[in-house]
Amino acid sequence: MDTVIVTFDDFTDLDLFILWDILNRVETPGWRVRLLGERESHTSSTGVEVKMHGRLEEANASDAVLFCSGRGTRRLAHDEKFLGAFRLDESRQLVGAIDSGALLLAALGLLKGRRATTYPSAELKRLLEGMGVRVVWESFVLEGNVATAAQCLAGQHLAGWVIETLAGAEQKEKALRSVAPLDLLSVEL
Amino acid sequence: MDTVIVTFDDFTDLDLFILWDILNRVETPGWRVRLLGERESHTSSTGVEVKMHGRLEEANASDAVLFCSGRGTRRLAHDEKFLGAFRLDESRQLVGAIDSGALLLAALGLLKGRRATTYPSAELKRLLEGMGVRVVWESFVLEGNVATAAQCLAGQHLAGWVIETLAGAEQKEKALRSVAPLDLLSVEL
Repeated sequence: MDTVIVTFDDFTDLDLFILWDILNRVETPGWRVRLLGERESHTSSTGVEVKMHGRLEEANASDAVLFCSGRGTRRLAHDEKFLGAFRLDESRQLVGAIDSGALLLAALGLLKGRRATTYPSAELKRLLEGMGVRVVWESFVLEGNVATAAQCLAGQHLAGWVIETLAGAEQKEKALRSVAPLDLLSVEL
Repeated sequence: MDTVIVTFDDFTDLDLFILWDILNRVETPGWRVRLLGERESHTSSTGVEVKMHGRLEEANASDAVLFCSGRGTRRLAHDEKFLGAFRLDESRQLVGAIDSGALLLAALGLLKGRRATTYPSAELKRLLEGMGVRVVWESFVLEGNVATAAQCLAGQHLAGWVIETLAGAEQKEKALRSVAPLDLLSVEL
């Protein structure tokens, strides 16, 4: 199974790494997680430079495609070269976004007339509604095979959905348990 | 205010980036967050290479020093060169660790006879108890000015403690609210 995270300049660190880290905890043979971008590396809003594993076009053959979030999404939602790289198909792929990554799903026509969530700002609400999206304030919203999650730590829900769908409930449970704060778990050692 | 995160090879992505991202949300003038390591860059267990901002010794003059976690800590807890770089003093510094970073605090003598938490594994419990630590299964444990947190997402508590102590409750609240999943918040836009 091939899972990719679409990354770009001016991304938000935690949005990327909560997805990356949790998805990498799956132990199913053949499970692969990669970062895809327009360039060889991309730099976050705080200046962290991260190397990519492949080109944007490789998302089109992946089993799951998740879009990262960050200030960079405002520009990319109008960038025809960036958007033109994608030929996503929810009948054979899981597609999702965290926070302002929803702008990219909307720009690709995947949220038209659908419910979606995003980082709770008036700017994002207005931009998404202008693209025909019904914005709701929930942590995780699933419409067909297109999911959105609101605020960095809700990346757990997004990664959990991908893992459960592609690798099963046991792998999901194991991955999410291994990052949850201890006060949400019982420990016997 | 100068806050640093001690990083090393074979670190866990989410342990580092939850601290880094949340600490970077503080808007107090003069607030600075840096990654310190033995080399110019360090690589996580999943292969993500991250550039450092300074040398380990710079931790000694910082207001807060947080140790990252990951498989690399087992080796470093016996590495005299690594440990010898630190002259930490909890009477003038906040010191903390996430998950197996507790091994490094213990190796530096900061947890002797004290309560501490860590990633819930029998191996870590045994190693820490062998260093005189009273291991407890809580998300966040504070003894004097030395804090430990258990499991990646409890990095919120660790970062929140540093922010509240050094920048005030309002900055802490703002930073943590901006990453919390939406189902834990009320939104009015």
